[in-house]
Amino acid sequence: MKIAVFPGSFDPITKGHESIVKRAAPLFDKIIVAIGVNSSKKGMFDHPTREKWIKQTFADVPNVEVMTYSGLTVDFCIQQNANYILRGLRSNADFEYEFTIAQMNKLLKDNVETFFLLTEPEYSAISSTIVKDIYRNNGDVSQFVPAAIKLTD
Amino acid sequence: MKIAVFPGSFDPITKGHESIVKRAAPLFDKIIVAIGVNSSKKGMFDHPTREKWIKQTFADVPNVEVMTYSGLTVDFCIQQNANYILRGLRSNADFEYEFTIAQMNKLLKDNVETFFLLTEPEYSAISSTIVKDIYRNNGDVSQFVPAAIKLTD
Amino acid sequence: MKIAVFPGSFDPITKGHESIVKRAAPLFDKIIVAIGVNSSKKGMFDHPTREKWIKQTFADVPNVEVMTYSGLTVDFCIQQNANYILRGLRSNADFEYEFTIAQMNKLLKDNVETFFLLTEPEYSAISSTIVKDIYRNNGDVSQFVPAAIKLTD
Amino acid sequence: MKIAVFPGSFDPITKGHESIVKRAAPLFDKIIVAIGVNSSKKGMFDHPTREKWIKQTFADVPNVEVMTYSGLTVDFCIQQNANYILRGLRSNADFEYEFTIAQMNKLLKDNVETFFLLTEPEYSAISSTIVKDIYRNNGDVSQFVPAAIKLTD
Amino acid sequence: MKIAVFPGSFDPITKGHESIVKRAAPLFDKIIVAIGVNSSKKGMFDHPTREKWIKQTFADVPNVEVMTYSGLTVDFCIQQNANYILRGLRSNADFEYEFTIAQMNKLLKDNVETFFLLTEPEYSAISSTIVKDIYRNNGDVSQFVPAAIKLTD
Amino acid sequence: MKIAVFPGSFDPITKGHESIVKRAAPLFDKIIVAIGVNSSKKGMFDHPTREKWIKQTFADVPNVEVMTYSGLTVDFCIQQNANYILRGLRSNADFEYEFTIAQMNKLLKDNVETFFLLTEPEYSAISSTIVKDIYRNNGDVSQFVPAAIKLTD
Repeated sequence: MKIAVFPGSFDPITKGHESIVKRAAPLFDKIIVAIGVNSSKKGMFDHPTREKWIKQTFADVPNVEVMTYSGLTVDFCIQQNANYILRGLRSNADFEYEFTIAQMNKLLKDNVETFFLLTEPEYSAISSTIVKDIYRNNGDVSQFVPAAIKLTD
Repeated sequence: MKIAVFPGSFDPITKGHESIVKRAAPLFDKIIVAIGVNSSKKGMFDHPTREKWIKQTFADVPNVEVMTYSGLTVDFCIQQNANYILRGLRSNADFEYEFTIAQMNKLLKDNVETFFLLTEPEYSAISSTIVKDIYRNNGDVSQFVPAAIKLTD
Repeated sequence: MKIAVFPGSFDPITKGHESIVKRAAPLFDKIIVAIGVNSSKKGMFDHPTREKWIKQTFADVPNVEVMTYSGLTVDFCIQQNANYILRGLRSNADFEYEFTIAQMNKLLKDNVETFFLLTEPEYSAISSTIVKDIYRNNGDVSQFVPAAIKLTD
Repeated sequence: MKIAVFPGSFDPITKGHESIVKRAAPLFDKIIVAIGVNSSKKGMFDHPTREKWIKQTFADVPNVEVMTYSGLTVDFCIQQNANYILRGLRSNADFEYEFTIAQMNKLLKDNVETFFLLTEPEYSAISSTIVKDIYRNNGDVSQFVPAAIKLTD
Repeated sequence: MKIAVFPGSFDPITKGHESIVKRAAPLFDKIIVAIGVNSSKKGMFDHPTREKWIKQTFADVPNVEVMTYSGLTVDFCIQQNANYILRGLRSNADFEYEFTIAQMNKLLKDNVETFFLLTEPEYSAISSTIVKDIYRNNGDVSQFVPAAIKLTD
Repeated sequence: MKIAVFPGSFDPITKGHESIVKRAAPLFDKIIVAIGVNSSKKGMFDHPTREKWIKQTFADVPNVEVMTYSGLTVDFCIQQNANYILRGLRSNADFEYEFTIAQMNKLLKDNVETFFLLTEPEYSAISSTIVKDIYRNNGDVSQFVPAAIKLTD
């Protein structure tokens, strides 16, 4: 079975995340959207809420699952029999960061490969950080998050 | 009227900021240097001090005003009838960041355009962050801030 | 009068160019779309064709003119009483290149400032080079060039 | 069937290319290493030689095929029933270029997705261009090309 | 005497740092590995431990010394009669940051020059930050730190 | 003896080149400014002229020599007993290119290290290519080339 892990904090999930997973879904038997728990970074939305929104987003994509994990991403992959990590790339800055992480993951577990898709241009400026910033300042974020979810839920 | 907002934290204003505004001043009827208030980031200098220094810097540029704002920059623009945001670009890293912000602002308010000027080479290494770092370590920052102001005021 | 020159080879004009000029038009009294003649680079389309397409593209924008020039861009600006150069930025690679050109122009003529607009995300991958490449390989380029023009004209 | 096209000029194939294809091979049912014929760029090695070297390199990877094509890469994909393009990323400069190409391909054929793998660090400086340059200056290129091939063949 | 300062937080020293210093050692009469003390950033390992590890790493390189400093790096250089700062570059992101710091240092003390070596590819993904992150999550970091030291010491 | 090679085409030498060599001269016993002869790229100025200008530029720096070479730079270094290559870095784009070249040189000759200095900001936009372009269009290039030389010599 070809299983990919799509790790992130998803605080909250954006249209960019949604697009990456939906475009990659046909290539893998299963994609696990994996919410990383970071004890030192609390975030804006709690984990059950993030998970609910991800489930609503992929309700119609049968081979997408949602899980929560802590510790190293590669250890979670091994535990889930996932040989692939899936990541989106929006920009050069993303590339620099992802390059470092992917190389380290490869050094830690040689049998886990990271595949990248490029974010579609219309989503390239969207990040969870900016969505939260707009939300905190009472801006309308509906055009940046998946249609299936409501931040006011 | 062609009004531009030049937003920032200006903690403190640098020679780089000064140069951008003075070079752009002839193109606009009014430029509002807008000090963003961020409740979660206190900064080194208080807002009245930042404002005083900006006013001293542009004392001889009649179409420059100084204001303080909170909330989204585009909302402040609309409120001030400003259809333009002015920003300086120093480097690739700036470009990545500004690209994201400008695209989001455009998505939030289609009638507010962001125009960029490139920082002149001799100011390209100067940032408020580095000025503060040097100041905190008792270094001489006078060559990095506008001649009109004194950090020891 | 606030006059801007928008220089390029426009071989052919793309939707990206169109968008930059239309978004900047309200800020300037006149924008001159200036086709640079480079004796050592022949290009794919001849100059009268490029000029015709640009005129069709901006037929409904009264303050846009089209001209052809050779020599240094800053010399053409001085000759046209233009104190501004307008450029679009699509990516980091653009930034590096434009940064160098803008700095040199500033060193050559201190009274000509280059203002930048960011290309809208949906046009960020479009360049004349790629349009020509697709056209040469019989691909359909209609979604990349202004609606007003027909490459088969 | 999940078919990927790995397009390039492979003039000559490098250890970097070899590594990308071997790491991606388990994910796809078939990978077509596709040598693009560019009538305006002659290259150093002729097409039969490039093809022979690629075949030697992947002699022990049963789901890798070698083909030659001209025209647009996406048109070749459609013709081969390939819904995936595979590309390697070595650096930021690669990213900029690949980003543009991948976006254009997506705009031309929405059902062809480009997946990227990052080049392993020890191969990140290797390019066909540099290999040719060293070869032309009588340097030893054996550490940069697949073990299976001999440039002096 | 040609003295270079190699400043950093070394929390902890990595194989990347080790490689830079060992490659640069033949060029200088003395290299001072200088642990910067930052009162506002506590770090993971205490200063005596960081210092012990650096000493173990360079036990066989006679012209390398280890010191701790606070304040501006250029002030420390002057105090140590060091006319050179040595830095490693791993990536574009490093370049942007180092460019700014080096320019500021040059502006502060014109007689202190910063020389750069590029990190060898196999160490380009290694940073103290990532090493700490793996360590904190119980991953094995031995392949990322100098052979001479044990993080479990 | 610590000998460095500063390779380039110097067509023509610029103030940027001049600054790098003069800043590095105190660190090395000898710096060889090495004009690479590339049979396929003719250039604008002939080699005797380029060499004359370099000699005039460094007439007062006794440990700088000028030579012409063909073939691989590392082979020239070995032949000259030079264990160091000296290069300037102006920008991210330079970094990408230099990174690749330096890594390849290191792989070819492990005992030749490349050291980098950053170009001073006021010279960061200057390149031989742009100087030639301005010169070809009858612009004044005197502010971009060393004071000691006259392009009209």
